Amino acid sequence: MEIMQVMGSMVCTQRVEGFAHQNLRILRNSKGKLNVATDPVGASPGNWVFTASGSAARHATGNANLFTDLTIGGIIDHWSPDG
Amino acid sequence: MEIMQVMGSMVCTQRVEGFAHQNLRILRNSKGKLNVATDPVGASPGNWVFTASGSAARHATGNANLFTDLTIGGIIDHWSPDG
Amino acid sequence: MEIMQVMGSMVCTQRVEGFAHQNLRILRNSKGKLNVATDPVGASPGNWVFTASGSAARHATGNANLFTDLTIGGIIDHWSPDG
Amino acid sequence: MEIMQVMGSMVCTQRVEGFAHQNLRILRNSKGKLNVATDPVGASPGNWVFTASGSAARHATGNANLFTDLTIGGIIDHWSPDG
Amino acid sequence: MEIMQVMGSMVCTQRVEGFAHQNLRILRNSKGKLNVATDPVGASPGNWVFTASGSAARHATGNANLFTDLTIGGIIDHWSPDG
Repeated sequence: MEIMQVMGSMVCTQRVEGFAHQNLRILRNSKGKLNVATDPVGASPGNWVFTASGSAARHATGNANLFTDLTIGGIIDHWSPDG
Repeated sequence: MEIMQVMGSMVCTQRVEGFAHQNLRILRNSKGKLNVATDPVGASPGNWVFTASGSAARHATGNANLFTDLTIGGIIDHWSPDG
Repeated sequence: MEIMQVMGSMVCTQRVEGFAHQNLRILRNSKGKLNVATDPVGASPGNWVFTASGSAARHATGNANLFTDLTIGGIIDHWSPDG
Repeated sequence: MEIMQVMGSMVCTQRVEGFAHQNLRILRNSKGKLNVATDPVGASPGNWVFTASGSAARHATGNANLFTDLTIGGIIDHWSPDG
Repeated sequence: MEIMQVMGSMVCTQRVEGFAHQNLRILRNSKGKLNVATDPVGASPGNWVFTASGSAARHATGNANLFTDLTIGGIIDHWSPDG
């Protein structure tokens, strides 16, 4: 799993079916790259989280039929990007 | 999922079976790399979209038997590459 | 899917079973990295092709039991590396 | 599989269900990037380990329903980062 | 699949179950990065091999229940790193 920081939410009026009521968050990884993840834990902007990718991301939502490839697995209690 | 911009469509007269009637789009990611994705939402050149990769890409088409590894999941309502 | 150029074929007298009669091609991606792919479409050196990776690569061969992780999906009609 | 070094453990009070009692370790790969992995072998900080990613990570925990995407597969007997 | 060179074997006294009697090899890819792979073909140090990753790696061992994510698929007959 990777460690990323929550930047905000994403709005997509026009999208494929299959996300149910999952929220989409924009995350930034350690190299500054932006990613989009489903969020079953309710993370807020600024939170440091860890993410599961690939087929694990679908399992992590509690609904293996969703087609996400990145899901927030938890909010890290204490974290600073410099370790 | 990743955020990419639609560049155009791709024509392949000679290809394997298994894409049904899905359109193929050429996308550019944040590093400038070109990718090819199936498009079930009808995105246009210039649109910013997010994409699902891996096995999720097949689910996202609505037909898990397709063999795509990248599918457009939605068109982002408001996006600028500089955030 | 990714866009790559066919460089040639690969000969492996000593290999595991499970490729059936698939040909193995050496491809070069946009960064110059070499990859090996199964080829169900009959691409020739110099052709620009797009490839499906991961579990999609097995589906693309028409035999989901093959253990390839990269398969040529089609030959692009018109392509120049500079767009 | 990749070779990484164990840096420490990670505490996440607020996380999704599905990890059972697996411990979460923070690992560092050869490029210095930090990753989070489930640990069924009981590795300690400083240990050099190898990790399985993707769907293999779930199999490696002994419970294919966990949603991890990175699992420690073993502790390497002798290893120095310079080979 | 990727092209890599065999560097040697790896010894892990303390590891999870699920590798059966597969040998573990240390491989180096074209960028110099070290990887660990299961080896069903019996490759020797110095050999150039191609590898299958992801779920294909499990199929390639002949036992889809193994949890490897990288498996040697064959030894290349003639190869020089400069092409």
